Amino acid sequence: MECYFDNSATTKVCDLAVGEIYPLLTENYGNPASLHKKGDEAKAALDLARVNVAKALSCNPDEVYFTSGGTESNNIAIFGAVEALKRRGNKIITTAIEHPSVSNAMARLERQGFEVVRLPVDKFGKINEMDLYREVNRKTILISIMLVNNEVGSIQPINSARRAVNRAGSPALIHCDAVQAFGKISVTPYDLGVDMISVSAHKVHGPKGVGALYVRKGVRIVSPVYGGDQEDGIRSGTSPMPAIAGFGAAVTEFKQQDVTMARIKAFRDNFVKRILVLPEVHINSSSESLPYIINLSVEGIPSEVMRNELSLRGVYVSSGSACSKGHRSSVLKSMKLPNSRIDSALRISLSRYTTQEEMDYLVESIFGARNKFLKL
Amino acid sequence: MECYFDNSATTKVCDLAVGEIYPLLTENYGNPASLHKKGDEAKAALDLARVNVAKALSCNPDEVYFTSGGTESNNIAIFGAVEALKRRGNKIITTAIEHPSVSNAMARLERQGFEVVRLPVDKFGKINEMDLYREVNRKTILISIMLVNNEVGSIQPINSARRAVNRAGSPALIHCDAVQAFGKISVTPYDLGVDMISVSAHKVHGPKGVGALYVRKGVRIVSPVYGGDQEDGIRSGTSPMPAIAGFGAAVTEFKQQDVTMARIKAFRDNFVKRILVLPEVHINSSSESLPYIINLSVEGIPSEVMRNELSLRGVYVSSGSACSKGHRSSVLKSMKLPNSRIDSALRISLSRYTTQEEMDYLVESIFGARNKFLKL
Repeated sequence: MECYFDNSATTKVCDLAVGEIYPLLTENYGNPASLHKKGDEAKAALDLARVNVAKALSCNPDEVYFTSGGTESNNIAIFGAVEALKRRGNKIITTAIEHPSVSNAMARLERQGFEVVRLPVDKFGKINEMDLYREVNRKTILISIMLVNNEVGSIQPINSARRAVNRAGSPALIHCDAVQAFGKISVTPYDLGVDMISVSAHKVHGPKGVGALYVRKGVRIVSPVYGGDQEDGIRSGTSPMPAIAGFGAAVTEFKQQDVTMARIKAFRDNFVKRILVLPEVHINSSSESLPYIINLSVEGIPSEVMRNELSLRGVYVSSGSACSKGHRSSVLKSMKLPNSRIDSALRISLSRYTTQEEMDYLVESIFGARNKFLKL
Repeated sequence: MECYFDNSATTKVCDLAVGEIYPLLTENYGNPASLHKKGDEAKAALDLARVNVAKALSCNPDEVYFTSGGTESNNIAIFGAVEALKRRGNKIITTAIEHPSVSNAMARLERQGFEVVRLPVDKFGKINEMDLYREVNRKTILISIMLVNNEVGSIQPINSARRAVNRAGSPALIHCDAVQAFGKISVTPYDLGVDMISVSAHKVHGPKGVGALYVRKGVRIVSPVYGGDQEDGIRSGTSPMPAIAGFGAAVTEFKQQDVTMARIKAFRDNFVKRILVLPEVHINSSSESLPYIINLSVEGIPSEVMRNELSLRGVYVSSGSACSKGHRSSVLKSMKLPNSRIDSALRISLSRYTTQEEMDYLVESIFGARNKFLKL
């Protein structure tokens, strides 16, 4: 049996998306920027995908800009906002547990002289919104906070950012990396109160190589990408059409998120109960976090040993995120977990395709692996 | 009949590439950065594609970095080299007829205070290598010259750049945008004498959304892309696996380039002879240029009128490049063509799949369109 529990790293492309991709490779292969029938066909597919992604975000299609993925969306939002607003102030606010495409961009801005404040998180990976109110001031030009953390699933109170900005009279733009939240909980500019939102196709059963950046109408950013000014100059470069069409199809499958969420939550809660029977197991994710992501430690068994043993049993989980291999997780460090728990941490990430049978096999496999390495 | 003559904008994906893409969407959908069997499968496909692209460039696999396309390759090369060498000098040399992903990056560097010299071109779009010898000095940190121009097909004497750098004792890195040359003529670091080469998959019958940057071993650049440090930190972001695998397959079809070139050259020469019977036709490309690209003007008929009429007849050509719609071509302006020729210019771009029958239909269609708009 093969069970894929690494859906926060990437997901299987859904059939609907595969079906959209195929004809754009073989028949409607035109460049959407080309002004002839072959280009028009591709442009129509591009427009349709944009409408679909806009619907999924409850925004206007001309607020959706396609990018090459979540990393590029985050880079464009951060560097683009700072370039546009650098004359208004020098302060940037983010959290201690952002994805590297945010945290490494922030480190670069810090080296350039910007003041970057990284809000601390509690033991479940959540920021305190009072810190946000205290830090935001009239010199703050950017706030970038992820909605759902990719390693532990904690959900941030992102809509406090707008209140903090309003209260301080700050010119700051607010960016939200919603890559892990999209398709699972509501991700809309209205709910979040943000100016920019990053999403990625391959985390929502679309293909790798495409993402989107929502930029609220009227907000001006200066893209760090230079070229033929596709996507209104926000992301130059030939639109990756087969992938964009697949993305557009994948987001139409976001149906009944509440029903799916209830099922996933039941899977998570049941799993946690069964696995906590093992005395070495600690659950690092809060019960308030997104139930699709379960971070746990099996103390005494190093993450990579457990991950490899589970892989041999056909169960695919992550040790830390796929983006930070080789380093001790900075997310878990920020949550002040002891090293013994950080070094034995595993991330189990579910998808809407996860079944009860797979959950059962997961429990059985963890028990089996645990009993192989730890004497009873 | 439908004839696609816009292969410089994008190409049909070859069957071999389509075949590689499919299983990576549906079955081997893992993230190559994931350290379990599902990730290993994807990593194997990534490694194989890298070996294939390295073979096509006659370089080492660890000198090949996958990107999201030609634009990103050019941006990374240019900003990455300047960031690495900015303490060594202030001067950058390029040409007047680069692709917007180079020319707009250069304009940005100029706004930041760098001295950017744009070498002029002759009436066929070719630089004079003596200008290169004169301009390169010890304060020059970057030279970026395209190998084949995307609008007229002119081939630049790029290997003079290395001689100029050596003669001047310059620290400059040499970058070559070889997007239009790749797969058609030899593109190797050895022949070109360059440090960095940009290529794109979708110009060589691979999918859109992926390209590569060759960076010579030992050369250090500071990538402008920040994130999970995939591709050794040169291009962060989840590897767009289905597209990369398609790219890797597409480049294995670069066979007998000389034989194909001879056929394409015969097509081009025959076409030019037949079309020059029309007194309004001027060929803007030199007979020395890459025969895959034929730029011509039908004086008296605006480009967009001719392009649209040809599209109705099932013949797809470009008016200017797909990346510069709405502007008068800066390439043709740099070649000092009269406006009457610039405003009536068409780009016909062939591929290895172009047939004699299509060439015949192209001539017939241009004659038909010309006779519709111009009285005899």
